[in-house]
Amino acid sequence: MNFEEKVLTTKSIYHGRIINLEEQTVELPNGQTAQREIVRHHGAVALLCLTAAQDKLILVRQWRQPLSKTTLEIPAGKIEINESPSVTAERELNEEVRLTAKRLEKIAVFYTSPGFADEKMYLYLAHDLQPVQKKLPQDADEFLELVELTMEETDQAVEQGEICDSKTLMAVWYWKLLQTQAKG
Amino acid sequence: MNFEEKVLTTKSIYHGRIINLEEQTVELPNGQTAQREIVRHHGAVALLCLTAAQDKLILVRQWRQPLSKTTLEIPAGKIEINESPSVTAERELNEEVRLTAKRLEKIAVFYTSPGFADEKMYLYLAHDLQPVQKKLPQDADEFLELVELTMEETDQAVEQGEICDSKTLMAVWYWKLLQTQAKG
Repeated sequence: MNFEEKVLTTKSIYHGRIINLEEQTVELPNGQTAQREIVRHHGAVALLCLTAAQDKLILVRQWRQPLSKTTLEIPAGKIEINESPSVTAERELNEEVRLTAKRLEKIAVFYTSPGFADEKMYLYLAHDLQPVQKKLPQDADEFLELVELTMEETDQAVEQGEICDSKTLMAVWYWKLLQTQAKG
Repeated sequence: MNFEEKVLTTKSIYHGRIINLEEQTVELPNGQTAQREIVRHHGAVALLCLTAAQDKLILVRQWRQPLSKTTLEIPAGKIEINESPSVTAERELNEEVRLTAKRLEKIAVFYTSPGFADEKMYLYLAHDLQPVQKKLPQDADEFLELVELTMEETDQAVEQGEICDSKTLMAVWYWKLLQTQAKG
């Protein structure tokens, strides 16, 4: 079965600092046409970071204007043009958490919302974290608070809705899988 | 610490069928101003469905125009205006998979991309699935293929990148957690 949609026209709607928006007219497999609304994004990285004793998850509290509230999320950031994801990961780890990892293990690569956006995210598990020697400057419009939570406190933060985004829930569930493997 | 960003102006950029786009000027906690690009979305549901023997994951193969490729995803769909998420879930289960659940267990609620979008997703575990008596009509512009994969085949589909979105990876990891609990 051929599912491909052929692009008939592409109309650029918006060029932003973080996203672009375009509207496409496509030809469906049955010959009919349809409209597609597509958000273009450069991609992002996120980092599952545990404290040295492996018993706490490192999170960042920040304001999220689309949600009009603060959230607790794992450290993350946008990939700059021509930057490789692992370089972004090292940079964000320094900027947001002031740590550096001896090894970054890529545990998942995924699209955050494939119905309307092409944002691709690289999720890393950071191994052997150490304080950074040289702190990179932080983004001028970013206000962050570092938080370390035990598994029990993490579950509470999920319950209370302060942990409320897909990448962070993925990190929490992956951490649970790691713990069951360590026990098994 | 107060993180709140005060909205100074909101400019509507685009009204689409699935998303709206707005640009905000906000006042930061330090008194400076910044631009925010915000995609508005009605929200969506997704369903973790296992076969009767609990040994296969039910997935949908479909074309995703933002990615210009087909993907394997768990059944999902957009919440209509004034529709409650559990009603959406029952509807999508019928439309996409031709099944009905005796019970829908909400296992996660999350934002897919809180940096630029307010899309909220409700992830359900479907219990006691049965074939539907009355099939609802499918969306005219949706072409779907149902696929059932064992855990091993699912891991391969992740490896090969055909399973490549956050909600489906979450479902896979939750299924793994369920299996370790069943064994433990």
